[in-house]
Amino acid sequence: MSGRNTEELNGVTQLGNQGTRYPDDYAPEMLETFINKHPENDYFVKFNCPEFTSLCPMTGQPDFATLYISYVPSERMVESKSLKLYLFSFRNHGDFHEDCVNIIMKDLIRLMDPKYIEVWGKFTPRGGISIDPYCNYGKKGTRWEEIAFNRLAGHDMYPEKVDNR
Amino acid sequence: MSGRNTEELNGVTQLGNQGTRYPDDYAPEMLETFINKHPENDYFVKFNCPEFTSLCPMTGQPDFATLYISYVPSERMVESKSLKLYLFSFRNHGDFHEDCVNIIMKDLIRLMDPKYIEVWGKFTPRGGISIDPYCNYGKKGTRWEEIAFNRLAGHDMYPEKVDNR
Amino acid sequence: MSGRNTEELNGVTQLGNQGTRYPDDYAPEMLETFINKHPENDYFVKFNCPEFTSLCPMTGQPDFATLYISYVPSERMVESKSLKLYLFSFRNHGDFHEDCVNIIMKDLIRLMDPKYIEVWGKFTPRGGISIDPYCNYGKKGTRWEEIAFNRLAGHDMYPEKVDNR
Amino acid sequence: MSGRNTEELNGVTQLGNQGTRYPDDYAPEMLETFINKHPENDYFVKFNCPEFTSLCPMTGQPDFATLYISYVPSERMVESKSLKLYLFSFRNHGDFHEDCVNIIMKDLIRLMDPKYIEVWGKFTPRGGISIDPYCNYGKKGTRWEEIAFNRLAGHDMYPEKVDNR
Amino acid sequence: MSGRNTEELNGVTQLGNQGTRYPDDYAPEMLETFINKHPENDYFVKFNCPEFTSLCPMTGQPDFATLYISYVPSERMVESKSLKLYLFSFRNHGDFHEDCVNIIMKDLIRLMDPKYIEVWGKFTPRGGISIDPYCNYGKKGTRWEEIAFNRLAGHDMYPEKVDNR
Amino acid sequence: MSGRNTEELNGVTQLGNQGTRYPDDYAPEMLETFINKHPENDYFVKFNCPEFTSLCPMTGQPDFATLYISYVPSERMVESKSLKLYLFSFRNHGDFHEDCVNIIMKDLIRLMDPKYIEVWGKFTPRGGISIDPYCNYGKKGTRWEEIAFNRLAGHDMYPEKVDNR
Amino acid sequence: MSGRNTEELNGVTQLGNQGTRYPDDYAPEMLETFINKHPENDYFVKFNCPEFTSLCPMTGQPDFATLYISYVPSERMVESKSLKLYLFSFRNHGDFHEDCVNIIMKDLIRLMDPKYIEVWGKFTPRGGISIDPYCNYGKKGTRWEEIAFNRLAGHDMYPEKVDNR
Amino acid sequence: MSGRNTEELNGVTQLGNQGTRYPDDYAPEMLETFINKHPENDYFVKFNCPEFTSLCPMTGQPDFATLYISYVPSERMVESKSLKLYLFSFRNHGDFHEDCVNIIMKDLIRLMDPKYIEVWGKFTPRGGISIDPYCNYGKKGTRWEEIAFNRLAGHDMYPEKVDNR
Amino acid sequence: MSGRNTEELNGVTQLGNQGTRYPDDYAPEMLETFINKHPENDYFVKFNCPEFTSLCPMTGQPDFATLYISYVPSERMVESKSLKLYLFSFRNHGDFHEDCVNIIMKDLIRLMDPKYIEVWGKFTPRGGISIDPYCNYGKKGTRWEEIAFNRLAGHDMYPEKVDNR
Amino acid sequence: MSGRNTEELNGVTQLGNQGTRYPDDYAPEMLETFINKHPENDYFVKFNCPEFTSLCPMTGQPDFATLYISYVPSERMVESKSLKLYLFSFRNHGDFHEDCVNIIMKDLIRLMDPKYIEVWGKFTPRGGISIDPYCNYGKKGTRWEEIAFNRLAGHDMYPEKVDNR
Ligand SMILES: [Ca+2]
Ligand SMILES: [Ca+2]
Ligand SMILES: [Ca+2]
Ligand SMILES: [Ca+2]
Ligand SMILES: [Ca+2]
Ligand SMILES: [Ca+2]
Ligand SMILES: [Ca+2]
Ligand SMILES: [Ca+2]
Ligand SMILES: [Ca+2]
Ligand SMILES: [Ca+2]
Ligand SMILES: [Ca+2]
Ligand SMILES: [Ca+2]
Ligand SMILES: [Ca+2]
Ligand SMILES: [Ca+2]
Ligand SMILES: [Ca+2]
Ligand SMILES: [Ca+2]
Repeated sequence: MSGRNTEELNGVTQLGNQGTRYPDDYAPEMLETFINKHPENDYFVKFNCPEFTSLCPMTGQPDFATLYISYVPSERMVESKSLKLYLFSFRNHGDFHEDCVNIIMKDLIRLMDPKYIEVWGKFTPRGGISIDPYCNYGKKGTRWEEIAFNRLAGHDMYPEKVDNR
Repeated sequence: MSGRNTEELNGVTQLGNQGTRYPDDYAPEMLETFINKHPENDYFVKFNCPEFTSLCPMTGQPDFATLYISYVPSERMVESKSLKLYLFSFRNHGDFHEDCVNIIMKDLIRLMDPKYIEVWGKFTPRGGISIDPYCNYGKKGTRWEEIAFNRLAGHDMYPEKVDNR
Repeated sequence: MSGRNTEELNGVTQLGNQGTRYPDDYAPEMLETFINKHPENDYFVKFNCPEFTSLCPMTGQPDFATLYISYVPSERMVESKSLKLYLFSFRNHGDFHEDCVNIIMKDLIRLMDPKYIEVWGKFTPRGGISIDPYCNYGKKGTRWEEIAFNRLAGHDMYPEKVDNR
Repeated sequence: MSGRNTEELNGVTQLGNQGTRYPDDYAPEMLETFINKHPENDYFVKFNCPEFTSLCPMTGQPDFATLYISYVPSERMVESKSLKLYLFSFRNHGDFHEDCVNIIMKDLIRLMDPKYIEVWGKFTPRGGISIDPYCNYGKKGTRWEEIAFNRLAGHDMYPEKVDNR
Repeated sequence: MSGRNTEELNGVTQLGNQGTRYPDDYAPEMLETFINKHPENDYFVKFNCPEFTSLCPMTGQPDFATLYISYVPSERMVESKSLKLYLFSFRNHGDFHEDCVNIIMKDLIRLMDPKYIEVWGKFTPRGGISIDPYCNYGKKGTRWEEIAFNRLAGHDMYPEKVDNR
Repeated sequence: MSGRNTEELNGVTQLGNQGTRYPDDYAPEMLETFINKHPENDYFVKFNCPEFTSLCPMTGQPDFATLYISYVPSERMVESKSLKLYLFSFRNHGDFHEDCVNIIMKDLIRLMDPKYIEVWGKFTPRGGISIDPYCNYGKKGTRWEEIAFNRLAGHDMYPEKVDNR
Repeated sequence: MSGRNTEELNGVTQLGNQGTRYPDDYAPEMLETFINKHPENDYFVKFNCPEFTSLCPMTGQPDFATLYISYVPSERMVESKSLKLYLFSFRNHGDFHEDCVNIIMKDLIRLMDPKYIEVWGKFTPRGGISIDPYCNYGKKGTRWEEIAFNRLAGHDMYPEKVDNR
Repeated sequence: MSGRNTEELNGVTQLGNQGTRYPDDYAPEMLETFINKHPENDYFVKFNCPEFTSLCPMTGQPDFATLYISYVPSERMVESKSLKLYLFSFRNHGDFHEDCVNIIMKDLIRLMDPKYIEVWGKFTPRGGISIDPYCNYGKKGTRWEEIAFNRLAGHDMYPEKVDNR
Repeated sequence: MSGRNTEELNGVTQLGNQGTRYPDDYAPEMLETFINKHPENDYFVKFNCPEFTSLCPMTGQPDFATLYISYVPSERMVESKSLKLYLFSFRNHGDFHEDCVNIIMKDLIRLMDPKYIEVWGKFTPRGGISIDPYCNYGKKGTRWEEIAFNRLAGHDMYPEKVDNR
Repeated sequence: MSGRNTEELNGVTQLGNQGTRYPDDYAPEMLETFINKHPENDYFVKFNCPEFTSLCPMTGQPDFATLYISYVPSERMVESKSLKLYLFSFRNHGDFHEDCVNIIMKDLIRLMDPKYIEVWGKFTPRGGISIDPYCNYGKKGTRWEEIAFNRLAGHDMYPEKVDNR
């Protein structure tokens, strides 16, 4: 009835776990992975995360964003509940918008060693202006290195309509 | 009055059939095909499937998705009612989102031997995060092999707006 | 006051005609053309046709679609009222969705000998699944032959959101 | 730090529980309640449930709907995870759309004895037609009895736009 | 497993029937009913019908509309597949938009003797103007007679935005 | 096959007529009516007219609007092609927005003697401000007199979102 | 050709005037009126003003809003270009959002002595919160006094969706 | 240049203040008011707050909501920056959705003694279901007591479309 | 205070001019230009023109369209008020949709000698079908000649959704 | 708790500063920068600025736009509050739309020496036509020089739908 056996779920401890601990500050150690069962063909996985919140490092006021994280797995894949807990760990952490997306990307690279990854943050406005940073990465020595550059070069040529309401 | 004669409808047994059997678990044997009458020019067929549901392999809770399946037919084409019954067979079957789209793609490759195919799943969120896996395939030794790679390289540069409501 | 003189309207008999005859079945002979006054530069013409309806060849039940027909004219161009009457002729005609778009494209190629043409059908769902076939064509021996292939290779990388409501 | 103490959470056993059992068929016994801490003023609570699915009692084919459940609590309130499990119990249960919304409403009345409740189901189409049943109830002998009638009399004067896509 | 037993499905012959006959012209005799199992409380059922098509009685050209049919059942309820076949019977029938909605309402009153019913047609434009007729009815001698009048008096105070595209 | 016989189409001369004359200036004489076949029950007919254009009486510059015209017929009903020609007659006519809607309403009252009518104009902006006049009328001595007042009193409590783009 | 003669345009000096003076600060004296030609029936006129801007009285930073101004004219009506200039005069003027809408309403009452008027401001957010003040007025001793109260009592029961983007 | 003098800004200390302190837990003492300069006519003020976040009292996981707060001021009005800080104080505070809206309403009643107030929370889903509580209040002994009841009785008859994406 | 001095505004006579003359028929002589102050870097300017109207050359009935005109300036740029008057001159002029866009493009090429230009017309439907012609041009002997071809080859691969309402 | 230390915030004086001075006219000197902490990988930062307003250099009337500013940082990055104050300085400054976007881009190049930058302005209409200028820049001698040209060549092939409302 289930397509994954116990071995194939190895390393997944947070999913379905009752006693979830919510971290107080930035906690990359919460991230967990499971094995990629389809390594023979490259494919994309995207996480839509509209409930991201952090703090401004200068004023302490809360910031809010929707994050879009897309990657092409190599051997291991990030488990989504552990990703939720990791993102939660920015809740009481202060950093600029531009820094948050870069840090998240680097932590996920360290965790999964993916072929490709990109992180796009769309924050709510402060003083009438909103900021949307975007960074990406392709594994050195693979064709994804060039793809990463091409995707950056062609990034966001149709900005979404924004009216602050 | 009808553009397809009986011979050209050969192999189609579920469409218009009253005594449809709904399978209890994963049932790739339900898939049926009919002949492609326009083999001289490559063209696309897309199925929009907003009523897909499966189970989480760890917790047993139901998952929901809209699937978009697009392919370029070779000699035979999948019949849509048989596709409906096949997708229905995941209703009581447990698998990760990332596994479902890969399995569906592979079953359809085995069935139709298409020139090209892609499967995109857009699931509803759990714990505030939704997951959208996408995989594709181009037939080895044809120009669609390279096209498949190019489409993957250029996949989803404009993620749809998501706010979990 | 009018930019087209009588000669330039030659061949147009349905437009503004009171005694329009609506055909009973598939009637490609209704299609009419007028002359292209701007042959020195290639350009596109698109017809949006949200009122297309045909019948299922197996069950006889009605199908509905929006058709998008785009072409680059050569010497002659299809007149839109005659196109309306031609599309109307599928109203009591039975064919699969995939066949309809191919037949329409071939009839228009035969009529106009265009440099390029494409036909995209977006049908309403049956059994929870909707089907969107797309075919195209570039005139052999012109640069539009390669363009046709490139457009097919890059077709529909952002499927529209569908929820069957 | 928490506004609800242990006593005020009495009766809630599913929320945060790891070993959730998903029922095989219609299971109203899964519903749980907690105490209403604001009984002095009437107020509304609405549940948006876009992941409802049941079976057709004649053909066995799956149906899908978004349910909107709104109520005015009396002394006890339905806990949302138990509501999720209850709605899940229709997954392998066959009933007409019109029957489902009435049954759900009656089960919730029996559970909570609310002052007012309404259930609106918006199902996906079969054969080109979708069905949206709506029922409501106001407690006999209270002012909500008349309100229920007035809300029914003024129900849905602006049907949402629907095109089956 | 099914909430309706055989007796409660009495009178339903089209649903799940393989050899469906599609009528050539206006065919109110195709309508079928089933019993209302919840007669103790009034409630609404709405049918969304975006695939309605008829002919212009003067020119013979096809018209298209979305119909919204809402009613409060008395003892019997219209079965949706038979409603589909009945609406299909306007496909080759000519009548003004204003007449179609009145005829459909009267046929459904004759069939079901409902407490209340309304029919709203939203047609596509001809010559730049689209027409949306709306009629309703409340059973004489019941409170629904007055409600029908009130709903008519308050009809459509917020016309939907229309730009013919 | 047609629900209206020749007698019931009496008075309709423009519909399907080939030699349509387009008037040069304000031409209420172009309006035509046909008989209401459902006089026993009051009902609404709405015309959506997004292609209205007139001139500014002071500067001569063109103005554009979408008009929404809704009425409850008495014995006769306005034919939509004649309405199109009448509205066309404002194309080279100068009047303030507020005057146009009042004039159109009065002409239609004179033509049809309806039980109720309302006209809502939504114009495009000049100098950053757009103007939406609305007028209505209920026949004196009928219940529609009071309804007209109530509809005016409750008019447009939810203005549509406007951003001039 | 024009429906308004010179006398009926009396008092309108800004419309079509080349040498428009843009005021430096709050300038109610810029408002102009013209005569209402339809005094026999009450009707509504709405101004959509999405280009309103003022200053914060404490910090001096600019605020932005869309204003919706609706009124029922008595004998005279505000001319829209003069309204534009008046609203422009808040550009370098500091006041709270709640004060702006009240001041604008009072100035227009003084100018036109309307039967009814309402002003709704929808401002862009500061610190993640946006403010939408709404005020209205019905002429004392007329039926519009009670209507004003009823419209206030029923104001904005469906707040528009806002996400600050 | 500014419409509010120093006296009229009395009591406002947070707006424009550099050294803003962000509270650690529930902090109603942060709320500040200013004087209502238009007490002669009742009017509405609405706050749109799409950046609200709290914690689940049982599991500790973060919840997110858009709050809509509308009120009719009496003598004093809540200042929006102090409201922001107050809402921020729920960031690390645990309470059920239904409790949060009631607590916020009661704190604002205590602060401002308004004639009328309502609070509507629209939370993101957990387990596929989202919860939208709504409470309101009218000052005892004023006409707003009855209005509050009428608004509750007519609350949310058109639930917004939700698909969890 | 102004970034353009008198010399840099040379050639602009219509902007801010009170005695604007509106032409009776096709009037390319109304077009005016001003100097491009940023010739060192190529850039785009787009005009959105949703208020275009012309006449059908065969039937005389009015047509409506939104035009999108985009260009890359060379030494001179078209002034927008003169463009408005030029487009107005099609109001009483008859031409096919396909001819209008080509004529407008050629007139603007003659006027400005731009590096690149494109014109896209989106017309409202007649007989259920709408027509969207698109033409473009790149200056011979510059890199924009090839860009023009590439833009044409990649034109409109995602037709906007159209339903004639 | 904060990811940026004091040194890394060097040069930021406006953010969180109480005594903000709002400039009277064009003030590029207000712009401030901070250091890029991720120089090893190129990435994008976008500012959405829907609250931009300037004056027409010929008539003095106010213009409104949404600006989209995207750049790839080199060593330093523009701080968003200083950007807000800089954009505010156009509030009483007169320039053509086409000039504003070029000036803003040049000022930001001078400030940050970015690898890439683009500025897109979307203005509200005057006389029924709106103008959307777009300019971009890639640093000479880097790969971004060619990317800038490619982005310009592929700019805005899908103009957003505009209807001036
Ligand atoms: Ca918006
Ligand atoms: Ca959303
Ligand atoms: Ca949808
Ligand atoms: Ca839809
Ligand atoms: Ca739709
Ligand atoms: Ca539109
Ligand atoms: Ca908008
Ligand atoms: Ca718009
Ligand atoms: Ca949103
Ligand atoms: Ca928004
Ligand atoms: Ca949706
Ligand atoms: Ca959504
Ligand atoms: Ca639609
Ligand atoms: Ca549409
Ligand atoms: Ca539309
Ligand atoms: Ca629009």
